Amino acid sequence: MSSTANDKPARRTGRRVGTSHTQEQIAAAARAQFAEAGYDRATFRSIAAAAGVDPALVVHFFGSKADLFREVMQLPAVSAAVVGLAEVPRSELGRLLAELAIGTLENPATQPVVLGRIRSASSHAEAAELVREGVTRDLSQLIGAITDDRPAERAALVGAHIVGIAVVRYVVKVEPLASMSAAEVIDLIAPTFQHYLTEPL
Amino acid sequence: MSSTANDKPARRTGRRVGTSHTQEQIAAAARAQFAEAGYDRATFRSIAAAAGVDPALVVHFFGSKADLFREVMQLPAVSAAVVGLAEVPRSELGRLLAELAIGTLENPATQPVVLGRIRSASSHAEAAELVREGVTRDLSQLIGAITDDRPAERAALVGAHIVGIAVVRYVVKVEPLASMSAAEVIDLIAPTFQHYLTEPL
Repeated sequence: MSSTANDKPARRTGRRVGTSHTQEQIAAAARAQFAEAGYDRATFRSIAAAAGVDPALVVHFFGSKADLFREVMQLPAVSAAVVGLAEVPRSELGRLLAELAIGTLENPATQPVVLGRIRSASSHAEAAELVREGVTRDLSQLIGAITDDRPAERAALVGAHIVGIAVVRYVVKVEPLASMSAAEVIDLIAPTFQHYLTEPL
Repeated sequence: MSSTANDKPARRTGRRVGTSHTQEQIAAAARAQFAEAGYDRATFRSIAAAAGVDPALVVHFFGSKADLFREVMQLPAVSAAVVGLAEVPRSELGRLLAELAIGTLENPATQPVVLGRIRSASSHAEAAELVREGVTRDLSQLIGAITDDRPAERAALVGAHIVGIAVVRYVVKVEPLASMSAAEVIDLIAPTFQHYLTEPL
């Protein structure tokens, strides 16, 4: 699949490609800084410096800091997960969601996004608002695909447990959770997820 | 019970009493700043300013920043809770622990301590270390009073769920958890706590 004349019309010129590369460099720098320093301490200036560009270019591409955060701190896994959930037996839903959550937290590409969202939301009201939007949308979409019995409560409870595991295992590193294998953690939390997803509340 | 000649030898003079009052003012200021600004942004200087004393006095009374954090961010409820847990039927343990956790989070005196610990631990490695010590000690003590079947795993799982509820309900304020009554939240999480405390893992 060579990309020659078949490129979509929107991708026209060499400059476009260069632009998009710069944009991706800025996004990667922003993601890393939101994850490590949190929303508050990641600034246009520090992100621009890490990406080797002028701060004005960050604003040009992404608009406000909130827009930048919203854009780069997304989790790509959700739509794939909705498809997955629709296809497994009801008795396996808890395990599947536990695997999805721990898989996202173990994956070096997505762990910084999840931990950065939690870290930012815990320390800054505007970031909390952005994370709240994201969590509500993502989890409601997931749980809405499974049940119409109190889906919002179920989503919030599962979400709370995922956030708690993330903080305790990956941020504060409380033993024995911190050193367990991913499979052990999944075994321990899957029954709780099954309860929150499918049993009477 | 007037405190005259019966004072312990260590509490001798008027100056002593004044000293202890200043110490308590510094502790209150430190607690408020750790809770709101987090470990990182709460400094000897800012705490001293809020308490109306010289920064050197904060160091004099409390030593290092870590010592200060450890001293003022303690939860008094734990020893009382251990007594309580020993006295209820096994089938009520989950509900009792849920009531204890939500009660601590709803209480205006202890909520800032819990949220400040989570906020600080999420944004600063040294604070994470201090919170890890505290969580491990407090929860192990609680769970150790109930069972000797994998108490450390049980403590970490319950702890993770409490931390998650705290972040989602009180910090990020995800609905419908944020607006529920405390009693509703307790009803929803008590079965999970019961599972983690008393059922096979």
